[in-house]
Amino acid sequence: MSEMKLFFDPETVALIGASANPLRPGYFLFKNLEICFKDKFYPVNPNLEQIEGKVCFKSILEVPARIDCAIIFIPAQSIPKALSQCAEKGIKAVIIESAGFSEVGSEGEALSQKCLEIARNAGMRLWGPNCMGMLNVPKLKILSFMNTAMWQGRLIPGKVSLVVQSGMLSAGFLMHILSKTPFGLSKVCSIGNKMDVDETDLLEYFLDDPETGVIGMYLESLKKGRKFFELARSTEKPIVVLKGGRSAFGQEAARSHTAALAQDDQILDSAFRQAKIIRVNEMTELMDVARCLAVAPIKIIPKARIAVLTFSGGAGVVAADEIFQRGMQIAKLKPETLSQIKTVFPEWMDPSNPVDLYPAMEKFGPIKSFSVSLSAVMADPGVDAVFVHLFAPPIDIPFFNFDAMAELIRKFEKPIIAWIIGHAETAAKMTQELEKRGIAVADEIGKAIRILSALTMRK
Amino acid sequence: MSEMKLFFDPETVALIGASANPLRPGYFLFKNLEICFKDKFYPVNPNLEQIEGKVCFKSILEVPARIDCAIIFIPAQSIPKALSQCAEKGIKAVIIESAGFSEVGSEGEALSQKCLEIARNAGMRLWGPNCMGMLNVPKLKILSFMNTAMWQGRLIPGKVSLVVQSGMLSAGFLMHILSKTPFGLSKVCSIGNKMDVDETDLLEYFLDDPETGVIGMYLESLKKGRKFFELARSTEKPIVVLKGGRSAFGQEAARSHTAALAQDDQILDSAFRQAKIIRVNEMTELMDVARCLAVAPIKIIPKARIAVLTFSGGAGVVAADEIFQRGMQIAKLKPETLSQIKTVFPEWMDPSNPVDLYPAMEKFGPIKSFSVSLSAVMADPGVDAVFVHLFAPPIDIPFFNFDAMAELIRKFEKPIIAWIIGHAETAAKMTQELEKRGIAVADEIGKAIRILSALTMRK
Repeated sequence: MSEMKLFFDPETVALIGASANPLRPGYFLFKNLEICFKDKFYPVNPNLEQIEGKVCFKSILEVPARIDCAIIFIPAQSIPKALSQCAEKGIKAVIIESAGFSEVGSEGEALSQKCLEIARNAGMRLWGPNCMGMLNVPKLKILSFMNTAMWQGRLIPGKVSLVVQSGMLSAGFLMHILSKTPFGLSKVCSIGNKMDVDETDLLEYFLDDPETGVIGMYLESLKKGRKFFELARSTEKPIVVLKGGRSAFGQEAARSHTAALAQDDQILDSAFRQAKIIRVNEMTELMDVARCLAVAPIKIIPKARIAVLTFSGGAGVVAADEIFQRGMQIAKLKPETLSQIKTVFPEWMDPSNPVDLYPAMEKFGPIKSFSVSLSAVMADPGVDAVFVHLFAPPIDIPFFNFDAMAELIRKFEKPIIAWIIGHAETAAKMTQELEKRGIAVADEIGKAIRILSALTMRK
Repeated sequence: MSEMKLFFDPETVALIGASANPLRPGYFLFKNLEICFKDKFYPVNPNLEQIEGKVCFKSILEVPARIDCAIIFIPAQSIPKALSQCAEKGIKAVIIESAGFSEVGSEGEALSQKCLEIARNAGMRLWGPNCMGMLNVPKLKILSFMNTAMWQGRLIPGKVSLVVQSGMLSAGFLMHILSKTPFGLSKVCSIGNKMDVDETDLLEYFLDDPETGVIGMYLESLKKGRKFFELARSTEKPIVVLKGGRSAFGQEAARSHTAALAQDDQILDSAFRQAKIIRVNEMTELMDVARCLAVAPIKIIPKARIAVLTFSGGAGVVAADEIFQRGMQIAKLKPETLSQIKTVFPEWMDPSNPVDLYPAMEKFGPIKSFSVSLSAVMADPGVDAVFVHLFAPPIDIPFFNFDAMAELIRKFEKPIIAWIIGHAETAAKMTQELEKRGIAVADEIGKAIRILSALTMRK
């Protein structure tokens, strides 16, 4: 088994720093590991006989089993000694989740060097410190100190793997986003100060991981940049990156957060573009774009020509502005497309793109006016992708034919992105039904168009 | 009574084109006017004796009362005749809500001219056509064909008045936004093709309207630009504008939507800046910014120095980048501010701005760590405004002291903007509690910082 696999799929785990105090991270780690690994989990704490009936070991050296991966949550000063014992025990994968290293200055930096030396001499890989560890969702192995109540029943296996240099994005914020729009996850990695294991190691692992289809990253610095970009260029898997520290203010904040060194953002930006990495600027945008890339078919179209179907002329105008902003085009619809749409339009109104369906809907109802128009634009060879504006009615009545939409996607292999307004509960249900069928859903026009640019402008 | 006041606060209204078909706009208008005006409402339809027991008149001329404002929803071709009858009846304010005018080409344009001529000769003001009319929320006068079920019980009186050149923003979309984050409204005006009454007339009205504190606009064109900007420069009331048709694509879409003529966006943009109008790019952003301007104290600070308090180092980094992007500054905290914050920090960690409160919270809990830090930064003379990142716990326990936050705002008159993640229901409750106390709330970091720039960079 490769060392990296030991982090993602260990059979046996130990926790150095198990706590019995239900408010402490060491307790949440205890709970999570107990739930996921049961009798393959060995807590270590020299001051406790047991926690909730489970025996604690005085030291890792007393654990009567081979350990694939050890998780450490003890004060930084005590870590070198614990690491030496892990080395002695032959452990090859260690996650340090406690803080107090490079991010706190030269003293912490010396501590980091000491840890690294111990690990190198022992052929051990170190993950962290100052991080929340790892979630393997398909195998339900939770090596994080996230509150147990926060993740239980909330994790759906799926294609998105995340690498984040901020614990919140692997815990509170991720769960917040999932509670709004659930989506499937593969691995979630909180990498903290990345004294050893970094985004490049993880990218390499995910490119070979059949369970990972899309990679989303929040990074405050980029280590081994050359190899990172080589890997990114070598893959068809979409990679979305939020780089914290774009500005001088952000770089200063990143230094005190994860000891990240400032990097020239313009150089990084052009490297991202060359490697066809999708760059985003906000945490919600990172999750939105990653989710939608996992949901929808991705087309390689440099200047995508977009058809816009809305129930509001104003929404069409704002969408057209955003399409321009993102370097895409408003598709010029063929005469036969327009005459097909005209069959559901009132006498006095001629269709054009953006297609304003409000009068059509008044005359023929939403199902007919929408189906006729969507079929027409999807079949038009001058259309590369479609933005649709849907309305969620207050009662759960058939309003759109989702299966017919899925059939059009299968037939024409063009991405559709939907923006939904209306009744919140119906909208949430519609989102799930649509995303199941490969139609990505955004909750704002600007976001929809931003995602569409990611769906159409990928490698 | 001025003609404009007749639109906003009519005592008697007539509806030309009342419908008995519960799927038609003419029926929703009937319902809404009946609810709001009762026996001061007179429906007109030559083909119906009554609707739901209420007598219909054959023509406006048969209505046995003075009419302050008539609403017209009949096919475009029949409108000149109806308008002439309104003129004969002495009506000075008419809202045409049907479509089929300038937005459909030269024939419609001729129709518009005819209507305008009739109105001018009669000293009558015309509102519309191709619009949804008006909502006066404090007086609950709904002159719109919005579905009755959509607005009933959802409208809260408040300070924000809206002028929108897209019906959706006065109906479906507005209600969608209100269902997510309720806020108080004064007047909502859907102005459509604005053949006569336009944004400049309405701006003038709202500058004098004591019930209007903030003006939000979605415009596809700008008529009487010189007067519009003069008015904007003359007022302290914040004005937020989303201009549809920033790009060539958007302008083309706007032409077919509301017959808007293309305008040079760069010239408009510099005029907006000179008049200190806050320009936004998205419909959700328009509502967010208008809502928050009505909630929070507004400071006039060209290069605002911001203190950032988060429960996540990553959120601090991303916020710092966005602060830079928006031309603001990360405040340099005074030594006494830092030592006050240090009292809730662990030994190994020194505070800096952004203030990462996670370790403090682990040690002292959220109430104490947050209160101490917020008091410190609010009192710092080098801080102009504060961004706070709050966590909504899954159960409704005291987690932050909202009253203490309100007290700090009163004392120091500095805006605070909050970003909340966590449990959705608690977050919604927290949002209402915070906004009641003058703390604006956003649901993304990027939005929070965008709003903060509006709160600090106003006239």
